[in-house]
Amino acid sequence: MTATNHQFRLAARPVGAVKDSDWNRTEEAVRAPAEGEIVIQNLYLSLDPAMRGWMNDAKSYIPPVGINEVMRALGVGRVTASNNPKFAVGDHVTGLLGVQEYAYSDGKGITKVDPKLAPLPTYLGTLGMPGMTAYFGLLEAGKPQAGDTVVVSGAAGAVGSVVGQVAKIKGCRVVGIAGGADKCRYLVEELGFDAAIDYKTENVAEALKQHCPNGVNVYFDNVGGDILDAVLTRLARGARIVICGAISQYNNTTPVKGPANYLSLLVNRATMTGIVVSDYYDRAMEAAMVMGGWIASGKLKTREDIVKGLENFPKAFDMLFTGANQGKLVLQVAAE
Amino acid sequence: MTATNHQFRLAARPVGAVKDSDWNRTEEAVRAPAEGEIVIQNLYLSLDPAMRGWMNDAKSYIPPVGINEVMRALGVGRVTASNNPKFAVGDHVTGLLGVQEYAYSDGKGITKVDPKLAPLPTYLGTLGMPGMTAYFGLLEAGKPQAGDTVVVSGAAGAVGSVVGQVAKIKGCRVVGIAGGADKCRYLVEELGFDAAIDYKTENVAEALKQHCPNGVNVYFDNVGGDILDAVLTRLARGARIVICGAISQYNNTTPVKGPANYLSLLVNRATMTGIVVSDYYDRAMEAAMVMGGWIASGKLKTREDIVKGLENFPKAFDMLFTGANQGKLVLQVAAE
Repeated sequence: MTATNHQFRLAARPVGAVKDSDWNRTEEAVRAPAEGEIVIQNLYLSLDPAMRGWMNDAKSYIPPVGINEVMRALGVGRVTASNNPKFAVGDHVTGLLGVQEYAYSDGKGITKVDPKLAPLPTYLGTLGMPGMTAYFGLLEAGKPQAGDTVVVSGAAGAVGSVVGQVAKIKGCRVVGIAGGADKCRYLVEELGFDAAIDYKTENVAEALKQHCPNGVNVYFDNVGGDILDAVLTRLARGARIVICGAISQYNNTTPVKGPANYLSLLVNRATMTGIVVSDYYDRAMEAAMVMGGWIASGKLKTREDIVKGLENFPKAFDMLFTGANQGKLVLQVAAE
Repeated sequence: MTATNHQFRLAARPVGAVKDSDWNRTEEAVRAPAEGEIVIQNLYLSLDPAMRGWMNDAKSYIPPVGINEVMRALGVGRVTASNNPKFAVGDHVTGLLGVQEYAYSDGKGITKVDPKLAPLPTYLGTLGMPGMTAYFGLLEAGKPQAGDTVVVSGAAGAVGSVVGQVAKIKGCRVVGIAGGADKCRYLVEELGFDAAIDYKTENVAEALKQHCPNGVNVYFDNVGGDILDAVLTRLARGARIVICGAISQYNNTTPVKGPANYLSLLVNRATMTGIVVSDYYDRAMEAAMVMGGWIASGKLKTREDIVKGLENFPKAFDMLFTGANQGKLVLQVAAE
């Protein structure tokens, strides 16, 4: 029996929000691995805001996905055939597997993972790219000190929820900004944030004034736009802003809204630094060991929001931009 | 004979460009110094872009000038009467003397200067606040390395011209952005910049591409607005942007134009840092000694644009925003 590989390819470069017609659904028979290759059956695909940027034909930290290429995505899968001595059938692996049911690889950029140490979706979240982004972005660029007030936007998301919890572990006061009462309650009651601001119903600048009476020492920004501008008005002297992303701006058809209050950097001798997680890949083991320990001891909680079925990829991807997901958004494309 | 002290007081908080009606011209008789006081006859007043910010009722690094207070300004003057043992009649001093002909002081924040070591206006320029802003802002926040490409805006101004020359002394390739062919010629032919871009006639982004083929390692920003956005498109990996000011935005009546291309910080792992010169006042002697040596050896050139007569203060102040001044703008209010 020959398996079929269903795929989502980039049909057109989206203008604004991604439309169904920007995807091209293809299928092909799964072939045997070439010399040195492995075949991986994808189990879980990671849906991340950064993917929206990869669809634009713009200079960035990684080349754009080409038209008619399979959409780039991180995933976790199981090796189903191997012509590579480093991998055996049955191994679980993670890497850039793409939005499809089967992936081929020569093994470069593919890492084995152990399903006994953590649930497979966790390797796409806290023990994967979002967790490393949070860990290194906060600690290396944000430089939080015990007693600091740390604010994080997109706080209930895959990156933000780890940022806030790591900041708590480091002895900081943590305020999360998220959309909706459910997410805010989750941040405070389950993750132990000191306060949460619901940007959908609250005046963020006023709420920051209330929750950060001594100003904001570290701001970890996942959203950009009006929320970044609001936080800029509440900086403490010497504040560090970490620019991790700007999801509010990714679907713009007009120019990005620059932070109008950026001169607050001058008044407060503050710094704004951009980070890209791949700069820290050589330290991935450090982050995995430290955070794995925190997960094991209950200090660091993880949550995945799992949508089932490759065919639901476009709808699931859209959840990132409407804020519908709770925790790390994962698409399950096959049973474990 | 009792001397008269003519003064410019803030009559109203300006909206947009400063109007003549925002000033209140007053005069009063010069009185004798109180116990511990000195009377200073102002000789030169420093006109700086930062003064525009001091006129707004906004939280900043220094309280705003109050309505009906004498406008705040740095100056150099001569002590004409003293009830303070630390100062003698005839001493030359610098400090916040205000836009007026005579100032009173208890001596706090007043520093003696030696007219034999440098011309008095130089103490308001390269050996004063603008020079220190350039020196510490470039070296501490910009961290230029030999071989780096350093770009500076407002390059023919009091701060920018020192930034570029110090960067040259440190072995960098230096590109200045200024308005007008005369200023650009001055930067290249007299100050030794490697290239100059005339933002009034050239496409800044295109010119940067030409003059900075390996990208911009350090950008020292005095102007903000479209020029900051253009430089953001040309950053090298790990670039440092020093936010010193944003003169293009100071007279805005609409919100400040935030840098729409700020996500280039993320792509390029770059940093944007605000600086305020007063943070370095305790190291003023270091800057003065080092830069004084460079001036003496001809490595660092200074230029002042001197306008005469206190009555010309409003017109002269406006020159800062139209770019009419060449070098450090100084108002001479009395003969030496």
